[in-house]
Amino acid sequence: MHLTPIGTVLSPFRQAYGTPVQPFCAEGTEGRIEIFDDYLEGLTDLDGFQRIWVLFWCHRSRRPKLTVTPYRDTMQHGLFATRAPSRPNPIGLSALRLFGVSGNILHVGELDILDGTPVLDIKPYVSQYDSYPAQRCGWLDSEHVRKGVVVADGRFEIVASQFHQ
Amino acid sequence: MHLTPIGTVLSPFRQAYGTPVQPFCAEGTEGRIEIFDDYLEGLTDLDGFQRIWVLFWCHRSRRPKLTVTPYRDTMQHGLFATRAPSRPNPIGLSALRLFGVSGNILHVGELDILDGTPVLDIKPYVSQYDSYPAQRCGWLDSEHVRKGVVVADGRFEIVASQFHQ
Repeated sequence: MHLTPIGTVLSPFRQAYGTPVQPFCAEGTEGRIEIFDDYLEGLTDLDGFQRIWVLFWCHRSRRPKLTVTPYRDTMQHGLFATRAPSRPNPIGLSALRLFGVSGNILHVGELDILDGTPVLDIKPYVSQYDSYPAQRCGWLDSEHVRKGVVVADGRFEIVASQFHQ
Repeated sequence: MHLTPIGTVLSPFRQAYGTPVQPFCAEGTEGRIEIFDDYLEGLTDLDGFQRIWVLFWCHRSRRPKLTVTPYRDTMQHGLFATRAPSRPNPIGLSALRLFGVSGNILHVGELDILDGTPVLDIKPYVSQYDSYPAQRCGWLDSEHVRKGVVVADGRFEIVASQFHQ
């Protein structure tokens, strides 16, 4: 099971510190996704969708630990009960706002992804498939959990000397 | 970018033909996800969530074409404007109902995944992050598109002699 990047994220966020942890924390942020020319044909009709799933490779995430303290809590939880980027298969998942498509460039908003991140897949966001309001959400429903806008720190990021340039 | 399966899907669906194409087409279906013992610790607190994202490897999908006719339409669309399983990186994404966790077994419902499918990641479904009702959905909003329950045929599946046993 090998992956091939199909594109790259162009983002104002150059390091984890200060980056919104989810799209809903990233209101007003904008960026682009450049899809490589080999895949251009696959973008036909994408511009009719208001929102897209971006699957990406968390290329700057540390090696995973199976118990983590996520950004929204001061208590530890099992990794798979969190959205922490350090995972056995570090695949990120974000529902971004799609403003438009110009050739091989996707103009996106509510961006929570680091600059230079390899893109693995683009799928249309389909409310009928993906939207389940008011689901029970475990530890995230606790009173003490941070509910508003949260930005990342460096806890899941590899040290600067190891960054991919 | 290499992937390591963290578990396997145990499903009543043994071939694409007749398998629900999305969880909302799979009401009443049940199955299990077996997470490998090495990752057991990461499941702590997952059972508080009503729904989970399952990221999986579409191990029986054909090689991708960048223009496809999806199950819901008779017209062609760009691959990335569809959820067809034959993709450059064939990563499947389903929001399954989680009934409970028993040790390393996840009991799931609204299952649209083939038996034996390698699991890449489990993430909690968080309505605040993932639920966007009534988004504009391109070609899927067209009058002629099939809106109700749809099951797959074999159009994206490799031929039987190539199945992983």
